[in-house]
Amino acid sequence: MHGADYNPDQWLDSPSVLEDDIRLMKLAGCNVMSIGIFSWAALEPEEGVFTFEWMDRLLERFANNGIYAWLATPSGARPAWMSARYPEVRRVEANRVRNLHGMRHNHCYTSPVYREKTAKLNGLLAERYANHPAVIGWHISNEFGGDCHCDYCQEAFRDWLRSKYGTLDELNRSWWASFWAHTYTDWKQIESPAPHGEFAVHGHNLDWRRFVTDRTVDFCRHEIEAVRGANPSLPVTTNMHMIEGLDYRKFADVLDVISWDAYPTWHERSDDTRLAAEMAFYHDLFRSIKGKPFLLMESTPSQTNWQPVSKLKQPGMHMLSSLQAVAHGSDSVQYFQWRKSRGSSEKFHGAVVDHVGHEHTRVFRDVAELGAALSGLSEVAGAATVAEVAILFDWDNRWAVKDAQGPRNMGIHYEETVYAHHRAFWQNGVATDVIGSADDFGKYKLIVAPMLYMCGEEAGARLEKFVERGGVLVSTYWSGIVDERDLCHLGGFPGPLRKTLGVWAEEIEGLYDHDRNGIVLAEGNPLGLSGEYEAREICELVHSEGAEVLASYAESFYAGRPALTLNALGEGKAYYMATRLGDDFLSDFYSKLIVEIGLRRAVETKLPAGVTAQARTNGVDDFVFVMNFGGREQPVELDGRAYIDAITGEVAGNRITLGMNGVRVLKRRANG
Amino acid sequence: MHGADYNPDQWLDSPSVLEDDIRLMKLAGCNVMSIGIFSWAALEPEEGVFTFEWMDRLLERFANNGIYAWLATPSGARPAWMSARYPEVRRVEANRVRNLHGMRHNHCYTSPVYREKTAKLNGLLAERYANHPAVIGWHISNEFGGDCHCDYCQEAFRDWLRSKYGTLDELNRSWWASFWAHTYTDWKQIESPAPHGEFAVHGHNLDWRRFVTDRTVDFCRHEIEAVRGANPSLPVTTNMHMIEGLDYRKFADVLDVISWDAYPTWHERSDDTRLAAEMAFYHDLFRSIKGKPFLLMESTPSQTNWQPVSKLKQPGMHMLSSLQAVAHGSDSVQYFQWRKSRGSSEKFHGAVVDHVGHEHTRVFRDVAELGAALSGLSEVAGAATVAEVAILFDWDNRWAVKDAQGPRNMGIHYEETVYAHHRAFWQNGVATDVIGSADDFGKYKLIVAPMLYMCGEEAGARLEKFVERGGVLVSTYWSGIVDERDLCHLGGFPGPLRKTLGVWAEEIEGLYDHDRNGIVLAEGNPLGLSGEYEAREICELVHSEGAEVLASYAESFYAGRPALTLNALGEGKAYYMATRLGDDFLSDFYSKLIVEIGLRRAVETKLPAGVTAQARTNGVDDFVFVMNFGGREQPVELDGRAYIDAITGEVAGNRITLGMNGVRVLKRRANG
Amino acid sequence: MHGADYNPDQWLDSPSVLEDDIRLMKLAGCNVMSIGIFSWAALEPEEGVFTFEWMDRLLERFANNGIYAWLATPSGARPAWMSARYPEVRRVEANRVRNLHGMRHNHCYTSPVYREKTAKLNGLLAERYANHPAVIGWHISNEFGGDCHCDYCQEAFRDWLRSKYGTLDELNRSWWASFWAHTYTDWKQIESPAPHGEFAVHGHNLDWRRFVTDRTVDFCRHEIEAVRGANPSLPVTTNMHMIEGLDYRKFADVLDVISWDAYPTWHERSDDTRLAAEMAFYHDLFRSIKGKPFLLMESTPSQTNWQPVSKLKQPGMHMLSSLQAVAHGSDSVQYFQWRKSRGSSEKFHGAVVDHVGHEHTRVFRDVAELGAALSGLSEVAGAATVAEVAILFDWDNRWAVKDAQGPRNMGIHYEETVYAHHRAFWQNGVATDVIGSADDFGKYKLIVAPMLYMCGEEAGARLEKFVERGGVLVSTYWSGIVDERDLCHLGGFPGPLRKTLGVWAEEIEGLYDHDRNGIVLAEGNPLGLSGEYEAREICELVHSEGAEVLASYAESFYAGRPALTLNALGEGKAYYMATRLGDDFLSDFYSKLIVEIGLRRAVETKLPAGVTAQARTNGVDDFVFVMNFGGREQPVELDGRAYIDAITGEVAGNRITLGMNGVRVLKRRANG
Ligand SMILES: [Zn+2]
Ligand SMILES: [Zn+2]
Ligand SMILES: [Zn+2]
Repeated sequence: MHGADYNPDQWLDSPSVLEDDIRLMKLAGCNVMSIGIFSWAALEPEEGVFTFEWMDRLLERFANNGIYAWLATPSGARPAWMSARYPEVRRVEANRVRNLHGMRHNHCYTSPVYREKTAKLNGLLAERYANHPAVIGWHISNEFGGDCHCDYCQEAFRDWLRSKYGTLDELNRSWWASFWAHTYTDWKQIESPAPHGEFAVHGHNLDWRRFVTDRTVDFCRHEIEAVRGANPSLPVTTNMHMIEGLDYRKFADVLDVISWDAYPTWHERSDDTRLAAEMAFYHDLFRSIKGKPFLLMESTPSQTNWQPVSKLKQPGMHMLSSLQAVAHGSDSVQYFQWRKSRGSSEKFHGAVVDHVGHEHTRVFRDVAELGAALSGLSEVAGAATVAEVAILFDWDNRWAVKDAQGPRNMGIHYEETVYAHHRAFWQNGVATDVIGSADDFGKYKLIVAPMLYMCGEEAGARLEKFVERGGVLVSTYWSGIVDERDLCHLGGFPGPLRKTLGVWAEEIEGLYDHDRNGIVLAEGNPLGLSGEYEAREICELVHSEGAEVLASYAESFYAGRPALTLNALGEGKAYYMATRLGDDFLSDFYSKLIVEIGLRRAVETKLPAGVTAQARTNGVDDFVFVMNFGGREQPVELDGRAYIDAITGEVAGNRITLGMNGVRVLKRRANG
Repeated sequence: MHGADYNPDQWLDSPSVLEDDIRLMKLAGCNVMSIGIFSWAALEPEEGVFTFEWMDRLLERFANNGIYAWLATPSGARPAWMSARYPEVRRVEANRVRNLHGMRHNHCYTSPVYREKTAKLNGLLAERYANHPAVIGWHISNEFGGDCHCDYCQEAFRDWLRSKYGTLDELNRSWWASFWAHTYTDWKQIESPAPHGEFAVHGHNLDWRRFVTDRTVDFCRHEIEAVRGANPSLPVTTNMHMIEGLDYRKFADVLDVISWDAYPTWHERSDDTRLAAEMAFYHDLFRSIKGKPFLLMESTPSQTNWQPVSKLKQPGMHMLSSLQAVAHGSDSVQYFQWRKSRGSSEKFHGAVVDHVGHEHTRVFRDVAELGAALSGLSEVAGAATVAEVAILFDWDNRWAVKDAQGPRNMGIHYEETVYAHHRAFWQNGVATDVIGSADDFGKYKLIVAPMLYMCGEEAGARLEKFVERGGVLVSTYWSGIVDERDLCHLGGFPGPLRKTLGVWAEEIEGLYDHDRNGIVLAEGNPLGLSGEYEAREICELVHSEGAEVLASYAESFYAGRPALTLNALGEGKAYYMATRLGDDFLSDFYSKLIVEIGLRRAVETKLPAGVTAQARTNGVDDFVFVMNFGGREQPVELDGRAYIDAITGEVAGNRITLGMNGVRVLKRRANG
Repeated sequence: MHGADYNPDQWLDSPSVLEDDIRLMKLAGCNVMSIGIFSWAALEPEEGVFTFEWMDRLLERFANNGIYAWLATPSGARPAWMSARYPEVRRVEANRVRNLHGMRHNHCYTSPVYREKTAKLNGLLAERYANHPAVIGWHISNEFGGDCHCDYCQEAFRDWLRSKYGTLDELNRSWWASFWAHTYTDWKQIESPAPHGEFAVHGHNLDWRRFVTDRTVDFCRHEIEAVRGANPSLPVTTNMHMIEGLDYRKFADVLDVISWDAYPTWHERSDDTRLAAEMAFYHDLFRSIKGKPFLLMESTPSQTNWQPVSKLKQPGMHMLSSLQAVAHGSDSVQYFQWRKSRGSSEKFHGAVVDHVGHEHTRVFRDVAELGAALSGLSEVAGAATVAEVAILFDWDNRWAVKDAQGPRNMGIHYEETVYAHHRAFWQNGVATDVIGSADDFGKYKLIVAPMLYMCGEEAGARLEKFVERGGVLVSTYWSGIVDERDLCHLGGFPGPLRKTLGVWAEEIEGLYDHDRNGIVLAEGNPLGLSGEYEAREICELVHSEGAEVLASYAESFYAGRPALTLNALGEGKAYYMATRLGDDFLSDFYSKLIVEIGLRRAVETKLPAGVTAQARTNGVDDFVFVMNFGGREQPVELDGRAYIDAITGEVAGNRITLGMNGVRVLKRRANG
């Protein structure tokens, strides 16, 4: 799939524009458009008055020209008449002030009116278009997000709590409400967190975030139910993005396909390696949600207009960054948007067709070139990613880590740390899944769980069993601290991981930015590492309880105490890093570990800096994407297997050269 | 005119202070005071109870002592009783919360009550004092500014829009309301921009700003109407300042004289050159509004109290900075304020008479010395400034540029860029007007239009005609992007300037602060420039469409593409800078251009760094102000014409020396 | 006393925890606990339903085990049912929005309901426990602070103003309300300062702060009255902390003992000297409030959880920092809290008993070691501090200085300057009181009054008399500017200090951070200082009016003018620093002055960097605390008197060595 958000409702008074769009889509090799995303005002200009004619004509034009559509439900932005007539549809912010009309994504997901209006229009759309030959799926709303604090939502929150806890006693215990005399004695006393009310009770904050996810999923389900009936076989997706507020794993069950919107800031540095690895992390994350190919639903063919600085994509980068998505499991490359708006807030957001209105631009040529390449790669669609490593990345944990007030409030860098561990595999070309602690661990050889601060008894037991059965676990400082209620484990950290890791963390020190410690590797440690590495930010003072000490602290009054340990348990092993270590250490450590465990790499070769390789397989053929983000030309020595170029069909030698921003898709026989 | 804001209502219980003030005014050579600016509570202590007696006595004392007054309408701050009794007079902020009483400049310009109360008191003042011998004009209110979001103002905004657009269809089209489904279907749905409502529709924001200016002008007119009748010959002014929120050109028609308040932070650096040039820009701007001499209505004789740091004026700076205003067209030097307040927020703001209460201070002596100099320069009053260059600086464009979300949201530096172009003329002693794109272009040889982002078809056509008829135009990147509705020009940037400039700007890249590019001058270019100059922030990738390429990019994938072009059109020429260039380039470029076009300089000589010369002429004599802001003594070679010192009457040789902070006013026969 | 806040209401469902607590308290040498601080919800779970049984059992257990209690009134946090039923108890912020329920310390001190509920519960607690053998005093509420802007508080503010000023005329005069027409004509027009109302009238702001203190003291008195009757001999305290908002001196009369909460960030730098001196300043301040020993009511045995970074206490630091409090006059070392909470916002705040739940931790051992030391120092309790120097530090002045808009709004560094002057004595081991300008000056040889911006006629006269009678005064720039109404002194700065200091400050310049000036010592000046020192931030241009010029400015147009002066008046002397001088100057200057005046030092010896000595005396013995904060081992030469170690009883030689973070308590015969 190759295409874009298409908003012809902005050009209804320029028929020639619409006509030309079809010609240009073909020219660009674009075959799938997302339509109707912000069309509520165009579809229902007055309450109960529907104007589908322009949409009829559009879909007919698509059908006649071999173009397909993800048909959106238009609930991402509502018409002004609705805000005016039904104030309840407008979201109430945490300060308890109701929004005025404006912007988008700011309605109440609980409002009966909003639900009714959404169901009504969705139903009419489904009735009219669900069996249209041009329609290939539903694009539910747009970038769900945010929370509402209206009275409806307060009541729904209380219901959610009542159903979770049963009794106020249980709730009070879980929220440790006796602290500061916050014991609730009536459900009505409970409200959502507020800057001018309660904002520092971790259990309360966490439950609010969980509720918000559940509420949003419920609204999404409500939307889906309204469209599903007319043609149950049409797949359903909603476009996610990089927000922190929603636990996207909870959407897995209601959606058929995961899709997301990616807006990296290429060329912010002369070397795009770190950014590329971060994007790879998110591609891996979204692929792992359903464990199958996803869709890149939005990206920009050139610049955005809302980032601090919008650089142009250098030659090659459009191909490279688009194929990166495919390399990690995407079956599409879609853009926001097809044609630049003339006015309003995103009028300078990159698009396939610029304000100049014709195809004679560098951006259009880049898109068309990608279109051609994608059509050459059609057999990649549906191919799987096989990962033997998983990074544990729970939304609950992420929220809890960042809400905690602890040893380093000026920054504990949770995500950055997760990215850093992931990056060590990315640079080795090792496929990595990004999973939650409720997911199946059985298919992995190695699980990396950085800062598993929130780790309940059950998750701890599952990790213990994983190791006992022969898995390898890597964990770090600030793990096993609280259970799923955000209550501290009593009896010694890392709580339920203490036996698995074989250590007791007695004290946890925060360091200032100007502080440094280091670790000294023990002579003859089994990984064969040596020398000193820098440590910073957090240093735990741990006692080994059976674990082998691989490295010790270099400085401070705890110099000589354990800093890196290895515990054997059953048939497996568990490593523990008691302090934050840098990329140099992670690279050396994981490179050794990959060899020791025998993890497969996309290409069994040493990749140069900035280059990664990622593979997809259909069981018969492997498709290996070799990508150069390092900002300069790089030669890559392959591993002696027989490769052909998947786009050109030509034989590739054992040594290929990737230009700056270069990418090659190589095909080989699968191992089977 | 030389004088100050005079607030005797603060000292009514100290008659000896008032007595002494008259003595000190004479001693300081101060002959004009602004009175009554914040006197509402003193003039109308209770609703409908008026106490003019103190004002009677004050004006009588003035008349008896040869002191004149700008009589203020006191609407800049209202009495507490009015805020309490009539909540509607208190402004409502964008968050829709009505202000409590306090501060100043925060009333609703639409409120019927505020208008009624203002008209009433203004009328009484006029009736009583408009023919008083001491009164020489009206000082309407004080530093108009800000906006009100109350229901009255919302209704007025809707009326304004209805009258501008006629139909909602036209409004929707202009605001590109189809984006995000923002189509309005009832005028009542429209509100002013709000942080919790609509804030990102550019056309909406822009119209709000335009409305706010119109509303403020309307209120100003309302105030003037209330005073005008009693003596139509009294001139009317209002003191403007450096705010961005009001398009001051719209006030030109209702005022007789432009006046403004200037508060530079002298000595922030050891070299005051840049700051002096910036102040010169504003003097030029305010002079250009009516194209005739203006008044410096406020300045400080020593320090302010509200800037981050308040340094003392070094010896000489008071004379220099005051005569700078005169050099650029001011017929006055006025201060805030005459005598320092004992209490409240501005009690440390510099004044002619300090808390010590006597004249034996350095500040008082500086003021008196200036008073003497000004009385020696009385023939300068009314003399004209003749400019052959104009800088295009539209408020609409300024607002639109800064509201745009585009290639460089972290800072596109609109004003700084305008200042930089203006500075190149200032340092050459070339008189410069600062005009709007609706002003008359015919009298200029050169028009400089930096970042003319908003350029409608009509403005584009006027610039084209200006060039065709022999004018020279200099424009830059980020020009000709949107029309007056803030809708992008279709068909290729720089839109209506494309033919005039002979280029098409295909892509516009933002650079990070750490990014640099450069331009390489073409061999044998007609300006005779050579070598490389640094480029940053914005780089446009342009195609020449007939323009000669004077310089090309040095770096990035677009190295070698045009960066500076020259297009010949009719009898004129048009230069285009496709990227942001530094002071070194602008200085070299404009120095060449001044010679090529043959622009007159105040003195036909090369001025040393930090020194400028500005001339005024009455047709018979020229008055040339030579001013040294460079922080150290500088010799200046004149141009061989016969000069005398306008203050001392002594003959000046062809070489004068300006001490640190030195200034000389030289008189010569006009060219006639 | 040694102990902690003890919150068993968090563990009522874990009886074994409560049992173990008693065992651990004994093990740690902890004998006094503060209880019930946040127990309102546990004591009155429903309105009018009281549950004292758990408190009965707790106190009985204490009594049986030799543990004592400060019994808290629980008003620091209220139960949710009260917030729900009586909205008036919830504080209204300056933006006039009433808080929702949540957090703590956010009730209205005026609310009749809150006062009634507080009195009721306090009375019941007193009735039941005031004569309990385990109870040794009342801990009133917790860290009073903040202000409420509700209608009750507005009315109370108006009453307070009416009672202070009598007439609106007097209020208007004091607030200089004629400025900006702010004259009040009805008491009802007056409101508290507000961000969207009045916020820049200094007199208004100042009176609001004074009112807030008075209101809080009144509430505190209300609480005390409710507990006092049952046993008038029980001492009463409330725990203060480092907030700026309350003038704690106003609490002196209602409290029996001053106590405060100290949370320094040890080890932020490798050298803790500056931080230690700052803590010493606050210990001195709180001791001086009643001029007798105080209590350290809260501190952390390890880390906090709410600072940007929480480092561990290095070995020795717990002993050192705890004994520092004792050295400066504390008769206790108390912690927040005894046992770490499992959940909620402070779950990671350091405690004696960690989540691990046992005594085998470094922190517990440190606490127990201190417990042993404190029991060896029991005779220190009650011993006095004798100071011959006082630093003048008025809350009124502090508020006024920081509210002023003057020569350096980007930072005039009032507190930092006060600390710097204090530090010069601390490093010399000279005991220093920190007093207000209404306190008795008679007992001091030297008074240091940095930036005595607010100095009324009476304070000025008292300082004059102090000097005339032989005292030495040191004052600085930005002194004698305003009277107690915040109205500028007329007739020349430093106003009422002009005669005492013998100078007139004509102008006051602010410098930028990048600006520097310097002072040059006059040849043969009586202090024997020489050379140049750096000056920055503020430079006053003063005229000597009889004072001897000890140093002059080195730079700027006022080079050579007086910068440091000495005036003889009666039998005393007065020094004036016209500019901000650095630590190097203050150290040299005060070291000379200490010798000249003959001020006693704790040990008559030169102390190495980072080491201080502080003495307490009971008239028979002196206890000299020698403390090393310098981050490395330091030898200290004593002064030849006979010392024994007060903890071990061993004889100390004349040379002791303090390890890093080392402290020794030495005992000697008092001078008598
Ligand atoms: Zn809601
Ligand atoms: Zn209004
Ligand atoms: Zn209140």
